[in-house]
Order: sequence, then C-alpha cells, then structure tokens
Amino acid sequence: MRHGKPDRRTREPGQQALRQAGVREHNLALVLRHVASSPRPISRADVAAATGLTRATVSALVEDLIGGRLVAEVEPTPRTGAGRPANGLRLAADGPAGLGLEINVDYLAACVVDLTGAVRHHAVRHGDQRPRRPEQVLDATARLAAEAVGAAAQQGLRVAGAALAVPGLISDGVIHRAPNLGWRDVPVPARLAGLDVRVDNEANLAALGELHAGRGTDFIYISGEIGVGAGIVLDGRLFRGARGFSGEIGHVTIRPDGPVCRCGARGCLEQYAGQESILTAAGVTAAGTDPVQTIVAQARRNDPDMLRALRDAGTALGVAAANVVNLLDLDTVVLGGIYAPAEPWLRDPVAEQIRARVVTADWTPVTVRASALGPRATVVGAAGSVVRAIHEAPARWLNGGWAV
Amino acid sequence: MRHGKPDRRTREPGQQALRQAGVREHNLALVLRHVASSPRPISRADVAAATGLTRATVSALVEDLIGGRLVAEVEPTPRTGAGRPANGLRLAADGPAGLGLEINVDYLAACVVDLTGAVRHHAVRHGDQRPRRPEQVLDATARLAAEAVGAAAQQGLRVAGAALAVPGLISDGVIHRAPNLGWRDVPVPARLAGLDVRVDNEANLAALGELHAGRGTDFIYISGEIGVGAGIVLDGRLFRGARGFSGEIGHVTIRPDGPVCRCGARGCLEQYAGQESILTAAGVTAAGTDPVQTIVAQARRNDPDMLRALRDAGTALGVAAANVVNLLDLDTVVLGGIYAPAEPWLRDPVAEQIRARVVTADWTPVTVRASALGPRATVVGAAGSVVRAIHEAPARWLNGGWAV
Repeated sequence: MRHGKPDRRTREPGQQALRQAGVREHNLALVLRHVASSPRPISRADVAAATGLTRATVSALVEDLIGGRLVAEVEPTPRTGAGRPANGLRLAADGPAGLGLEINVDYLAACVVDLTGAVRHHAVRHGDQRPRRPEQVLDATARLAAEAVGAAAQQGLRVAGAALAVPGLISDGVIHRAPNLGWRDVPVPARLAGLDVRVDNEANLAALGELHAGRGTDFIYISGEIGVGAGIVLDGRLFRGARGFSGEIGHVTIRPDGPVCRCGARGCLEQYAGQESILTAAGVTAAGTDPVQTIVAQARRNDPDMLRALRDAGTALGVAAANVVNLLDLDTVVLGGIYAPAEPWLRDPVAEQIRARVVTADWTPVTVRASALGPRATVVGAAGSVVRAIHEAPARWLNGGWAV
Repeated sequence: MRHGKPDRRTREPGQQALRQAGVREHNLALVLRHVASSPRPISRADVAAATGLTRATVSALVEDLIGGRLVAEVEPTPRTGAGRPANGLRLAADGPAGLGLEINVDYLAACVVDLTGAVRHHAVRHGDQRPRRPEQVLDATARLAAEAVGAAAQQGLRVAGAALAVPGLISDGVIHRAPNLGWRDVPVPARLAGLDVRVDNEANLAALGELHAGRGTDFIYISGEIGVGAGIVLDGRLFRGARGFSGEIGHVTIRPDGPVCRCGARGCLEQYAGQESILTAAGVTAAGTDPVQTIVAQARRNDPDMLRALRDAGTALGVAAANVVNLLDLDTVVLGGIYAPAEPWLRDPVAEQIRARVVTADWTPVTVRASALGPRATVVGAAGSVVRAIHEAPARWLNGGWAV
C-alpha cells in the first residue's frame, strides 16, 4: 500500500538505483550459475555467449565474483584454434563454505561442504540424547560446530553460516515438537559457534540435498532413524505444507489398533519401521554405539531374525509409501537415513507393496532407490543448503549482508 | 528454439501485433474479473480506477464483452452526488453456459451453469452402469447432454462446452482405469452432443468447484461414492501429481490384511467407507434407486445398524484423512459426494481420528466440513470448470476460437 504522494525528485533516482542493483544481483547469480553448471572450466566469452550478456558486463561481474572468492580462475587450457587461449573459470573450492549440523535421537553430526559441493569435514558423535536437556544438547552441538569451523579453517575455508537439522516439527526457529527426543517448544538460538543458524526438519534438509544432487524432481525422501520422517519434492520444489509441517510419514497408520506410538496414536509406521523397532524385532538388546552398523552387519551374515525384521519393516514402509504414491502420484521413493545402507533388504518388500497397492502401478512404474547421498544425506543436505543460498544470492554475500 | 536468422522486416510487425493481441487478451480478462468479483453492478469508471486502465480503454473492452454476451449492463443506480449516474456492469446471466456431465457407478448426471455460476439445469438418471458397455454409457451420457443443451436453450442459454467427470484415472482424453465401473483404456470422444468435451477425474472437478466456491486454498476434497476419490488443493491450485493420477485416497490402506478391494489389494479405504460397504455393513440389501437417501433416512431415524456402519466408515475415513494431513499438512478436510449429506454422522469419527493421529493436531487444528456444493459438487464443479475457462480467457471466446 502506498501512503501519500511520492516525491518524484527524491524517489526516482533511488528507484533507478534499486533497479540497477536488482539487475546486478540477477546477473551475478546468472553468471555464477553458468560457472557452477559447466562440467569444466568455462571462459568469460562462453559465459557471455550462454547468458546473452556483453563480454564487458561478464568481465566486470566475474571480477566481483573472484574478489568475493566465489569464482576462481584456472590455468588456460591449450586450444587448437587461433587466438589467445581463454582463462577458465570454476567455482572457488576455497570460497565460503556451509556448515551442516544434525541433532538426532542417538547422535549429533556436523559437516562442512565447500562452494563446489564437496564434503570437506564430517564428524559424528554417537550417544543417546534423550537423557539430556535440550540446552545441553544445543551446547554440545555448538561445540561440535566450533570444532567443524576450526577444521574448516585449517583447510583455509571460512564457514558462511549453518543449517541445523532436527527430527521434529519446526517453524520460525522453534522446535514445536520432537517426539522422539521428548522436546516441546524449544527455541533454537539465532547463532551457534559465532554463525547464523537456520533450523529445519531433518528429512526436509535431506530431501533438498537429494534434489540438488540432481536425481529427480518428483519424489518422497523417507528418512529412517529412531523416528521416521519424509521430505516431499513436487515439481522440483520442497513441499512444506500449509503451515510447514508436511512429511510426517512416521505417523501414517499401518494398523489402526497396533502398538502405541510415542506420539500417542496406535499403529504408526515408526512402530514397525523405526530403527529401535527393527532392532527389537530382531531380538537385538545391545546394539552398540552404531546401531545401523549392527543392523547391516547382521543382515550381511544372513541372520534370520534380522532378515525377518527388515522384511517386516520394509513391508510396513511399502504400505506407507504406497499410500503416498496413491495420494501424490510420485514416480520415485528414495530410502534415506538408515534405510540407505539397509536398502538391499528393504527395496524388495517396499516395491512389492507398491506393486500390489498403487492403482497405477501396472502402467506407471515407481522407482525405489537408496539416497544418492547415503546415510549422511541429512547433514550433507543441511550444509549444502547454506552453500546453495550463496549460489542463489551471491550479491548478498558480496555485499556483506548475507545471512542464512 | 530458433532456427535460422529472423527476418527483421517481416517479423517485427507480426510480433508487435502479437504483443498487442496479448495485451488485449490480458485486459479483457482483467476487466471481466473485476466485473465478476464485484458484489454489485460496477461502473466503467470504477473498473478503470481498480485496474489502472484508462476510461477509454475500459469502455472499448466493455463494448467487446457486452457484444460477446459476457457482460450485461443494468439500470443505473441513483446517485446522491452530482453528474450523470453511471451504468452498472455485471456478468451476463444469458451469456455462454457450461455443461457438466458425470458418469458414476450407479448414476449419470448433467448440469448447466451460467456465466454467473448459477445452476440453471440439473438432472440425474439413477441406475447401475456396470452391466453396460462403455460405449452404451457414453451414448446415454450424450443423450443426457443433448437434453441439457435443449433445456438450456429454452432458457435462452447457449452452452459453450462440456466437462465430463468420471471416477477413474484419466489423462489425455483416455480413461485408463475406472475400477468400480470395470473400465480400462476407454477413449472419450472429443465431442458429445455437438459440444467439445474434456474428461477429468470426478474428485478433481469437484475439488475445483469447491475451490472456486471460495472456501479455502489448502484442502483435500474426499468424494464418497461407490468408489472413494480425492482432489487435493494446495496453495489455491489443484495438485494433479507427476502424471495426473493423484488423489487415489480410496486405495489408502486401512488394514493391510483387510478385505480384497476391486483394485486387487487388501484393506483399501473403499472397503470400509465406500457407499456399498456402508450399506452392506448396515445390513441393507435393497437400497432402492437412490442409496444415499436410504443411508441418510435410516441414520435420521437412528437405525442402530446404520449409525454403527456410518461410525465405522467415519473412523476408516478419519484414519485415511489423518494420513493425508500428516503427509501434506492441510488445514481442511472436505467431505463430498455421499459424505456431504452424511456429514452429521461422519464428522465426529473423522475428527476423532485426526485429533488422535495427526502429530500437529493439538496446536494446529484441522477443520472437517461438508462440501459447500453438497452432493452434486462434482457435476456442478464440472460445469463450473467450463464457465471458469471462459472467465480466464474471454478473448478466445470472443474470437470464436474457444474450446474447453
């Protein structure tokens, strides 16, 4: 809404400056996108040809991107044709990096991803977080974050910001519920270890990582941990729902009168396919510090109890996945979290239920596959989301006004 | 993609003409939208003020809209101020109308909606369609369509086109599967009763009708008939899925080892909450020509078997609806089809399951309500979709190039 008459003399130059700044922002992102998507170093001339910008404009933008350590120049590749060989541009591997953090029920994790998407640091602290208070867990996470920032600095990397993944229902920086941690209404500090931090649902961050790994634009990423969550990607975009709480596949009903879930309802998917349910069903009482290793090791040596537990979990997961495909008509189901290393034992029962239960299955096949990023998809996806924000708004980074 | 160099001399005038035509198309739709959304007749001057177009432009566009019978002029309302009272504009009630057609398992229906959205004709032929071949059913539908066109003509209405609703999986004019009709790969003629016809899933058309009735932008419309389907509206748009087959809530699993469904799977929602399942559960063997009336009449006189059957159906429906809300974080569940008149008996068990099973339910409430358009939502929504297409592209109608 406009209040009062605009003063033409003072407004117009300001508006023009704003427009010009908008154009520069747009063009910086455009050039960076072309450099990022080129499979090999790309010349300024090729960027100009691909974007329709003049060479002079591209050169000026590239100077800014190099100055801000977003783009680096590599040795010219020899050319067979005439003329001076062009310098190649690529993303700067020593540019601003992203920090991913993950609080899960039985571990904490941190990960640094550089501007090119390469994982430069990854650390996991196993240990049950449920006996600790939320502030204690957040303090431990801050320490892990500080270690990761230090490890990055030793490689010459400056961390630009952090994204924190939590298995819960999150909006506006508040963890409203994380049933498997027993948390309610926990606010997350705006900064951790000296960095701006954005908190998001773990499956959403993993799904974004999967999306940016370029393996499809319509899928559900199902994250198996002690809890089970999902990130839904529709038409190349994360679908968050009307209020930001989509993807609660762990509480899809498998049997209306099944065992009581931590959420209070009966027969939720988590009670059949959560990590602890699989271990209990297989008769494992002490799973050690890394329960995923236990599950995979027992399955590899064909332990009949573990094979049966995984088959039953896969069947329940398949019922829930079939519900999703019937409702949303997705063509791909991605198995993430512990389901990624367990995929060899889960894929068949999941696919069987989809074949049996999806009404379109006999003429529109559904792919079931493990996450491209493997079991660390969440924390890598979290770190990648920071880097991607820089990719999408390089001007904000260059202007120093950048925050995650 | 561009092939070869453009010829500047011949291209530019053409492009300019195209641009001008595009502007006119856009402005015609803009003016029509303002006339349509005004609660009372609106003057040309008010349309100009609201749209930012000049009065001369608005007058020219309004002339075209009046000439094409999309807009009508009403008597000027007396004004207290000075100056000549302005003529009011409203949608033309005698303008192009839309024909909705519906093939369902136990009835056929037709409906004519005028440009203002008013239902001007509605006819239902009860009778089981399953013993008939698809061509016979389509022939009967064409006869019903011809009758509706005749009834419209008697009211001075010209029908512009038709939309046909079918309870099945549809794309590109082909009914791939309609399990409850027993149809597979049935192509629908491009024209019926002399009208262009577009075929779509019945729950999708009903959901669009609900959307345009203006009662929300994020909801699932669940259509109870012999089959059970759904139309999912996200952020004000119908979500069709990756291949157009979304909304198959009738085949969401309620009990993995439940009764065998017509789709071949076990324990689908349809087996608990479909119309025939409700009648069977209530011990009704002969439901007469209008089974919905039977259900509602028995419930009204507190028949204990019918009340129990409706409570059980509502519980199953609630389990499926809770799955949907957990996955998509919608704030509204709309009960349509037979569920609309049965809503007084279904609402409580549906809401109970949602409260018990949706993880966000205790702080983000979900509304359960009957369809605003009632049990004829599908066929009214189908007719409305034709009218809405004219609203959105009036230029195509005025230019004579209009097709549904």
